Amino acid sequence: MPAAFELDPRLAADSLLVADGPLSQLRLMDDARFPWLLLVPRVAGAENWVDLDGASQRLLLAEINQASDLLRAVSGLGKLNIGQLGNVVRQLHVHVVARQEGDAAWPGPVWGSGPRQPYPAERRDALLWALRQRLGGKDPTRLPETG
Amino acid sequence: MPAAFELDPRLAADSLLVADGPLSQLRLMDDARFPWLLLVPRVAGAENWVDLDGASQRLLLAEINQASDLLRAVSGLGKLNIGQLGNVVRQLHVHVVARQEGDAAWPGPVWGSGPRQPYPAERRDALLWALRQRLGGKDPTRLPETG
Repeated sequence: MPAAFELDPRLAADSLLVADGPLSQLRLMDDARFPWLLLVPRVAGAENWVDLDGASQRLLLAEINQASDLLRAVSGLGKLNIGQLGNVVRQLHVHVVARQEGDAAWPGPVWGSGPRQPYPAERRDALLWALRQRLGGKDPTRLPETG
Repeated sequence: MPAAFELDPRLAADSLLVADGPLSQLRLMDDARFPWLLLVPRVAGAENWVDLDGASQRLLLAEINQASDLLRAVSGLGKLNIGQLGNVVRQLHVHVVARQEGDAAWPGPVWGSGPRQPYPAERRDALLWALRQRLGGKDPTRLPETG
């Protein structure tokens, strides 16, 4: 029997579940410096995007589009950074980050740009609520199907 | 008439054309510190991956797969970093970088990790030759169709 998917404990500690998509957990990075979403495919053992099969790659691409739209809507920012690194946490995860001139890492990458700054509880809960509201659907913890 | 695609002069200065793919220029970053390819879609005005139409996004995904295979083959490395940032150079370009423990930026990202170190001419030419050979086809400056 193949190993079951289990979220890496460092990802679990640094981010909060927004909703489950068709392939991935959609998570909010708990870092008030940047509007920052993570997609973590529920595929045990996956480490690199290009190692997923074609169908999973296309699902992940659709989820990236959806996460991008969502992040732009809640942040009001247009510029996005997308990254799949996994040098520290090997479990496959894709970053979608909204950026703006003058943010805490600008114009460098957010990865390795200093310690994260957790959201104040109220702001975090409001943001999670806004993200789930925008995703819509009857079950606010489940993403609508991606097209 | 829409503006024609023109390669950003900073990308042109920092990298070398390997071949033209269905959507993108495949280029070798001229930085001997990391095996590093760039894909630059020939789409005038494009800045974010998620702003491409669906067909172009899927073509770019296929090109990322091909660039990844190629980079692994010539470098012997398995770990890849994929990034689409564009904070400095706005023209849409995707990075595919092979990484290993102890490289010049490990475990941080390669972006913003200090000045690039151009290849010695002989090593650069040998690498370009090896990349084009692996791409195969009758015209070594043109990528085979991606599936």
